Amino acid sequence: MLDLPAAVALSVLPGAQGANLLRAFLARSPAAPLSAFRLAAELEEACPHRARLSLARAAEAAAPLLDDLAAGRRRAIVFGGEAYPPRLAAIPDPPPLLWINGDAASLAQPVIAIVGSRYATPSSLDVARALARDLAGFGFVIASGLARGVDEAAHRGALDAGATVGVLGCGLDRIYPPEHGPLAQVIVASGAIVSELPPSAEPKPEHFPRRNRIISGLALGVVVVEASLKSGSLITARCAADQGREVMAVPGTALGLRHRGSHSLIRDGAALVETAEDVLAALGLALRPVAPPPTGETAGDRHVGQTATVDPILAALDGGEALSLGRLEAATGLSTVELLALLTLHEIAGRIVRVPGGAFRTPPTPVVR
Amino acid sequence: MLDLPAAVALSVLPGAQGANLLRAFLARSPAAPLSAFRLAAELEEACPHRARLSLARAAEAAAPLLDDLAAGRRRAIVFGGEAYPPRLAAIPDPPPLLWINGDAASLAQPVIAIVGSRYATPSSLDVARALARDLAGFGFVIASGLARGVDEAAHRGALDAGATVGVLGCGLDRIYPPEHGPLAQVIVASGAIVSELPPSAEPKPEHFPRRNRIISGLALGVVVVEASLKSGSLITARCAADQGREVMAVPGTALGLRHRGSHSLIRDGAALVETAEDVLAALGLALRPVAPPPTGETAGDRHVGQTATVDPILAALDGGEALSLGRLEAATGLSTVELLALLTLHEIAGRIVRVPGGAFRTPPTPVVR
Repeated sequence: MLDLPAAVALSVLPGAQGANLLRAFLARSPAAPLSAFRLAAELEEACPHRARLSLARAAEAAAPLLDDLAAGRRRAIVFGGEAYPPRLAAIPDPPPLLWINGDAASLAQPVIAIVGSRYATPSSLDVARALARDLAGFGFVIASGLARGVDEAAHRGALDAGATVGVLGCGLDRIYPPEHGPLAQVIVASGAIVSELPPSAEPKPEHFPRRNRIISGLALGVVVVEASLKSGSLITARCAADQGREVMAVPGTALGLRHRGSHSLIRDGAALVETAEDVLAALGLALRPVAPPPTGETAGDRHVGQTATVDPILAALDGGEALSLGRLEAATGLSTVELLALLTLHEIAGRIVRVPGGAFRTPPTPVVR
Repeated sequence: MLDLPAAVALSVLPGAQGANLLRAFLARSPAAPLSAFRLAAELEEACPHRARLSLARAAEAAAPLLDDLAAGRRRAIVFGGEAYPPRLAAIPDPPPLLWINGDAASLAQPVIAIVGSRYATPSSLDVARALARDLAGFGFVIASGLARGVDEAAHRGALDAGATVGVLGCGLDRIYPPEHGPLAQVIVASGAIVSELPPSAEPKPEHFPRRNRIISGLALGVVVVEASLKSGSLITARCAADQGREVMAVPGTALGLRHRGSHSLIRDGAALVETAEDVLAALGLALRPVAPPPTGETAGDRHVGQTATVDPILAALDGGEALSLGRLEAATGLSTVELLALLTLHEIAGRIVRVPGGAFRTPPTPVVR
């Protein structure tokens, strides 16, 4: 638990200092609440003079941001709070705080990251966009870095069919690259733009490697599209591996050096993926999109994926009551990821409907036995 | 041991009959010499009426071919004979006989097969040609199927730097496709064109899958370039795996279906290769081409690959005597493959020279200590 003043103060510390202090604090007393007061006391005891000095400066810099938060002019998600995405909380060095524009709930959905070259070939851009669109169609939120090239293609593909999350290497007040301002506006309408850096932070080169751990930390797995051996995407892939997340790579031409990084990931054990179905398989899911039943055939005649005749979701919804995702998880024993993908398939097939508030129920006129 | 009349008779049997009879005979009495007379006796005992009938016809068809062989108008390599390539003899169903134009010795060199799509993209053709050229530069003979597309690119790439072997799915008198007649002429000048089918055999579709076992059977490993899921190259890859040869695949774009077969090979454990160095690494070698020493630097200052200061080849040749490959193998303990690759590197670097008859020695004016 981290109180807001402490979180904001940590957030404005330069570089990795805030996350490192949080990590050190968590290592010593994982369950204790961390207030600004306690943080100061801890530092008084444990930290070198210089760190205490910077924290004093940080608290000063944090003051107007705390005012903004109190007045609702800015929004932030604090480590340990309910809105903080559980997958991100599980990484070794979680950001103390995420500044956010958009829908905080999108971060806690099943997220898949797609990252790659800023100067990708048209063919790689097509792959990234198609993958993102198809995965968003399965109910996954696509995370990427809002950069030019593959990142942009991934965000746009996701927007074709669902929601996406952009993780910045600068503050929320300075979208980088600047021409992606309009894209960011569209993203926040259904997903979110987040950053661990204070709102006014500039896009410095040293921000991006650390930003990458957040992209992978939010995600179940990272798909790398067109990475050379020097690509920053390899950092994201390494973060994913360190965090125990699935690493996937899309192959490309062996001519030239553009895909050498992706291919070296595959040689080192990353899953080779070409399609959204390959990504699901790499994540241990085996779902197939189900075509709507042809005329004359009732939905009940058909099977969803490998769930065979008695589908646990349809069984749970059999009473006609609308159930939230949480209640469906409890009723079916399925993971959130499996559940969301299966719900999407049932929805496409017309077997269930989504009701306002995010719950699910059988359609008003039942087509399912 | 198979005598020539028996080999030719088996060779003219339709389909897999000849190889199957040889396999059955080898299974019963691996070391016994197999003459036409003995073959007839075996069949009298063991085979159904129809097979004996076809063998009678085969012996008839074989007669003029035996005359051609006796008169030197045609050449053939017989299973069990000295010229028969040892790697091919080791497969489960070796051809009883290979008809050959060109240099039989090229078949016994370290061979790497490169196969792939007949309708490959320019990018895949470039990859195949560059791989073949670079591997030929290391002293490997490149085997392929003389087909359009990747096969042709592999043969031409090999010819840029060394020798190549074409394995036909028809008889030697009917080069297929016909426009590759001139290519075949160039190939036989340094390498060879071979076929297990009688010289007049037409290029029937059923010939090609069986032909593929010869391509892989001649080779240490098979590199697949651009195979779709229906590609015949996957048959060659499966033959290679069944024969215990290395399976390698070059990745390509994930867009479309052109590389799906190659990518599925990689998923199933084939080595992902982009360069000749990758192929060497997959074969368990770790050689790097060595640039000739710049002016002012003596060859002795440089190292070859990982062989460090005392090179076993240079040590063996230190006396100034020219040594054959066989004697170098005995002196150095290196495998033929390693030896040939290292010899090529030394030759490029000017440390050794090739003398007529295929032996190696240090240069007349020693540049090496």
